[in-house]
Amino acid sequence: MKTKNSVFIATSIDGYISDKNGKIDWLNTIPNPSNDDMGYNEFMIGIDALVMGRKTFETVCSFDVDWPYEKPVFVLSNSLQEVEEELKDKVFLIHGSLKEVLHQIRKKGFKNLYIDGGATIQSFLKEDLIDEFVITTIPILLGGGTSLFSELPKKMEYELVNTKQYLNAISQNRFRRKRIN
Amino acid sequence: MKTKNSVFIATSIDGYISDKNGKIDWLNTIPNPSNDDMGYNEFMIGIDALVMGRKTFETVCSFDVDWPYEKPVFVLSNSLQEVEEELKDKVFLIHGSLKEVLHQIRKKGFKNLYIDGGATIQSFLKEDLIDEFVITTIPILLGGGTSLFSELPKKMEYELVNTKQYLNAISQNRFRRKRIN
Repeated sequence: MKTKNSVFIATSIDGYISDKNGKIDWLNTIPNPSNDDMGYNEFMIGIDALVMGRKTFETVCSFDVDWPYEKPVFVLSNSLQEVEEELKDKVFLIHGSLKEVLHQIRKKGFKNLYIDGGATIQSFLKEDLIDEFVITTIPILLGGGTSLFSELPKKMEYELVNTKQYLNAISQNRFRRKRIN
Repeated sequence: MKTKNSVFIATSIDGYISDKNGKIDWLNTIPNPSNDDMGYNEFMIGIDALVMGRKTFETVCSFDVDWPYEKPVFVLSNSLQEVEEELKDKVFLIHGSLKEVLHQIRKKGFKNLYIDGGATIQSFLKEDLIDEFVITTIPILLGGGTSLFSELPKKMEYELVNTKQYLNAISQNRFRRKRIN
C-alpha cells in the first residue's frame, strides 16, 4: 500500500510558524482580497485523514468557527479521554508510538495523511516519517517564536517537486523525501 | 545616494548555512555538471564591494584557490593588523560600529554591498541593515548546524521580488526589505 505523510504549512523567512507571542496574525501580512487558498483545497483533496497533536487540536477548537475539516482527524493524546459529542464522528483520539499510531490509522484504510502542528511534525521528522513538505514562505522576519524545524538525528535529502508563487508575493516549495528503494 | 546591502547565500530547508560539523559539502548535494552559478555572477555585477567578518575572511583564505573576488572586500576585524602583501589592493580591514563602517565604505563611493558570513549578516540584521536577501534553498534537512537567522529585536517585512528555479532542483527567493519612506 502506497502511503504518504505530508505537511502543509506556512513559515516566516526565518522559519517560524508562530511569533514570539505565539501569534499567527503575521500570516495575513500580504493582502488577500480574493481569498486565494494557496493550494490548500487542492492539497486537501489528496489527503485521507489528518494527524495532529493535542495542542493543535485545542487551538483549532478555540477558533470561533465551525469544525473546519471534512476528513477524519486523529488527535495524538495520552491525556484526553473523549471528544465532545458533536465531534465524535470527526475526531478520533489515538496514542502510542508513532509507528503504532500510523499502523492503526493505515489499517483503517487511510493512506495519505496530513501531519499538522509544530510538535507533531517534529516528532514525525525525528523518525524520518515525513514524505512531503509544502512550505509557504511569508516574506517577513519574525526574529523569534516557534520554529518549524528542530534538531534531527541525521541529514535527510528531499527533492524539489515544484515552486509556486501566490498573490505575486508569496512563494511555496513542495519537497518530497528522497528515499532509496 | 541610493545604497543597498545584499545577502546572497544558500541554506538547507531548515535554514542552516553550515552543518553540525561546520561543513558545507551538502551544498553540492544536487549534481551540477554544467556548473550553473545560480545567479551568482549576475548578482556580483550589481555589487560594488563585499563586507565580511574575520572568520569568513579566514575561511576564504584557507581555500586552496586564488583570491576569488574581483571587487574590494572590507573585512570587519578588531584584531587583524594587516593583510598579506598580495591582498593589499583587494582586502581592506575596517572596524567600528556597523553604521560607522558603512559610512566609511560609502564615503569611498561603494553603494551596493554584498554582506557575507553568518555572524556579519546577523549583526547587520539586528540593526535592520539588510535591504535584500537572495536565498537559495538546497533540498536537504541538516537537523543542526549554524543557522542563517537568529533572534531579532523586531519583526521586519520584506517583499518577494522573484522566485527562480535552478537545475530543476533548487529554488531561490529574492526578498527586498519593505521600508516606509
